Amino acid sequence: MVKFANRIQPCDNGLNDIFTYANDPALISFAAGYPNNQLFPRAALQTAFNASLTERCNLQYSTAAGLPSLRAKIAQHISTAQRQFTAEQILLTQGAQQGLDLTAKLLLNPGDGVVVEAPTYLGALSAFDAYQPTYYEVPLIADGMDLNALQKILLTHTVKFIYTIPDFQNPTGCTLSLAKRHALLRLAQRYDVIILEDNPYRELRFSGTPLPSLASLDTTNHVISLGSFSKILSPGLRLGWLVAAPELLEPLTALKLGNDVQSSTLVMNAVDHYLTTYDIKAHINAMNRAYAKKMTVMLTALARYLPATVAFTKPCGGFFVYLTLPAEIDTGQLLKQVILRDAKVAYVPSASLFPVSHQANGIRLNFTNLANETIELGVKRLGQILTQTLHQKHYAKL
Amino acid sequence: MVKFANRIQPCDNGLNDIFTYANDPALISFAAGYPNNQLFPRAALQTAFNASLTERCNLQYSTAAGLPSLRAKIAQHISTAQRQFTAEQILLTQGAQQGLDLTAKLLLNPGDGVVVEAPTYLGALSAFDAYQPTYYEVPLIADGMDLNALQKILLTHTVKFIYTIPDFQNPTGCTLSLAKRHALLRLAQRYDVIILEDNPYRELRFSGTPLPSLASLDTTNHVISLGSFSKILSPGLRLGWLVAAPELLEPLTALKLGNDVQSSTLVMNAVDHYLTTYDIKAHINAMNRAYAKKMTVMLTALARYLPATVAFTKPCGGFFVYLTLPAEIDTGQLLKQVILRDAKVAYVPSASLFPVSHQANGIRLNFTNLANETIELGVKRLGQILTQTLHQKHYAKL
Repeated sequence: MVKFANRIQPCDNGLNDIFTYANDPALISFAAGYPNNQLFPRAALQTAFNASLTERCNLQYSTAAGLPSLRAKIAQHISTAQRQFTAEQILLTQGAQQGLDLTAKLLLNPGDGVVVEAPTYLGALSAFDAYQPTYYEVPLIADGMDLNALQKILLTHTVKFIYTIPDFQNPTGCTLSLAKRHALLRLAQRYDVIILEDNPYRELRFSGTPLPSLASLDTTNHVISLGSFSKILSPGLRLGWLVAAPELLEPLTALKLGNDVQSSTLVMNAVDHYLTTYDIKAHINAMNRAYAKKMTVMLTALARYLPATVAFTKPCGGFFVYLTLPAEIDTGQLLKQVILRDAKVAYVPSASLFPVSHQANGIRLNFTNLANETIELGVKRLGQILTQTLHQKHYAKL
Repeated sequence: MVKFANRIQPCDNGLNDIFTYANDPALISFAAGYPNNQLFPRAALQTAFNASLTERCNLQYSTAAGLPSLRAKIAQHISTAQRQFTAEQILLTQGAQQGLDLTAKLLLNPGDGVVVEAPTYLGALSAFDAYQPTYYEVPLIADGMDLNALQKILLTHTVKFIYTIPDFQNPTGCTLSLAKRHALLRLAQRYDVIILEDNPYRELRFSGTPLPSLASLDTTNHVISLGSFSKILSPGLRLGWLVAAPELLEPLTALKLGNDVQSSTLVMNAVDHYLTTYDIKAHINAMNRAYAKKMTVMLTALARYLPATVAFTKPCGGFFVYLTLPAEIDTGQLLKQVILRDAKVAYVPSASLFPVSHQANGIRLNFTNLANETIELGVKRLGQILTQTLHQKHYAKL
């Protein structure tokens, strides 16, 4: 048998489990992070693909960086009064996920330091793992990363990049405060470390005022920022973007060329046509109203059905709510032994979301692709079984 | 400035140059490997996308391995009397290019040995380079790799995989003979080395009898085989496939998940619909008749206009013809100094297609996306300037 590279680890990171849960119709699954099937702008995308396919050259190769007119539209879409972006700062990617792979590929030698929020996005770890980094965890608090903990790490270790999801973080739903955004950028400058800003949920704000992206506050080219059409149009498109300074974008584009030559010409043309013809902000606003309602249903049900020993986050947007159970509970064991079987509910247990500490007492819940009644019912079932289990465990200790 | 990983090399591999030449309308470019713009089954694909977008779930996430029904159709498409394939052996990829990246990612630690045909496909080197292999070149002769040279390498070096394009090789157009296919598999078994079979041109045969793919002859799971819709349907789709044994396919699928989650659900569904509704073999046959004519035009013109000191291949299919000039000629220098300017013709010079020896006296010509008269005119211009240049250089030496 041929020997695999050292980067290939036999253990499964659990991402496949999530997709498996998602396909079991008997289960109420809070596990996957799927957008709502009913909220895709299907007719508009159909028109866009149709129009795009009547043009001449969109079945041919394009360029590694992607369709220039679409890059320009994305630059405009993310520009603010604070900072204007141009097409030359944009690389089109296969969802934001490819941006994670490309950034790690650009920066990491085996053993190089990567700071992640704890907990963090499983798929990012799966992208970074291939480049064999040394992970450093920074605890998340309600207003984002604990920057004192971050500074201690930067003082004592060599770090290549800091991975953050500043808006409606996956899995906690936390948002980095404005003061902390400025402070994080100052730390990145002082220690000359890249910030990898992953922003797939940014536009899914249900309440409060949007905060500037780290990219828009960056004056020293320390930020690589990722965006995606997956959550605002459709993940089935597989289209995202990466924003970076030219000296980073050029080698990243060369890596993209080696990875898969370019993104789909056809998909890029169709999305370009969609953005020309339709009002994506109106579409996002309509979607946000539906998602806001679903999150309210979930938070209300959590408040009602969870035992008092389980804390949960109250995000202002995004796809996820995060539960923290008493420290001795292993939510992965609980899921396999009791909850899938008796409550017919699935979630993402936290152990694999902490690459170093493997803290096992957290639960990620998603609500976006479930009917409101199903959310209520699932939380009720989950709450009841948690109440029962924690009660038993409590008395077992006495 | 943040330090890049060791895998990032400052030098340009020339792939971007090719795309640049392709976009200059003043030039007759034999450089790119683009399918013909007129031969895409545009109306059929439009119908397929339209039909696909009226269905419910094709804007949602799918699975990392790809749409099961499409994997089954591809398995059937590549099955022969010799060997039947099943959906479980297929991973859908972003063109064959992603299969190159994934295979190298699965197998290579820095310094590991990779055998390549000399010359070989530039894009494969660009994919492999990221994993810092040690390259070993095996000379190509008319019936494929020089297997004596290969055996010598396998006897004296540790090699992880042998990269080959057995049908209508890029850049030479050479096809590996049946006897050599069997012998190559025996070598792979004896030295326990993976064969990475890259087959994007396989179905573009203009004359002679198809030979079995290496995958179809493989009885010991030593072959990873890549196919693509890029040359038979459209490269703008970015859809290809990888065939491998389950013990290889499973970690490759995990790598795909980390790279970009999955291929486009929408594109997979549309191609699935196309294969259900239309006769792809009839489409390929029609395309082959047009390409065969273009190759005949090119070979006839080469025989007429090239000086006698320039040899060229006579492929039975594919996208390329390869010229060999006297050993002292550097076709890259010639291109930049004389040919682009005076003949207004572009091609791919060979130096970057030999990762170790950098042999500079070869030229790759492509004919697929040019009108027949343009091919004739371009070869005439190229032949005249080569005649003139080689004549001058000959007398300069006396």
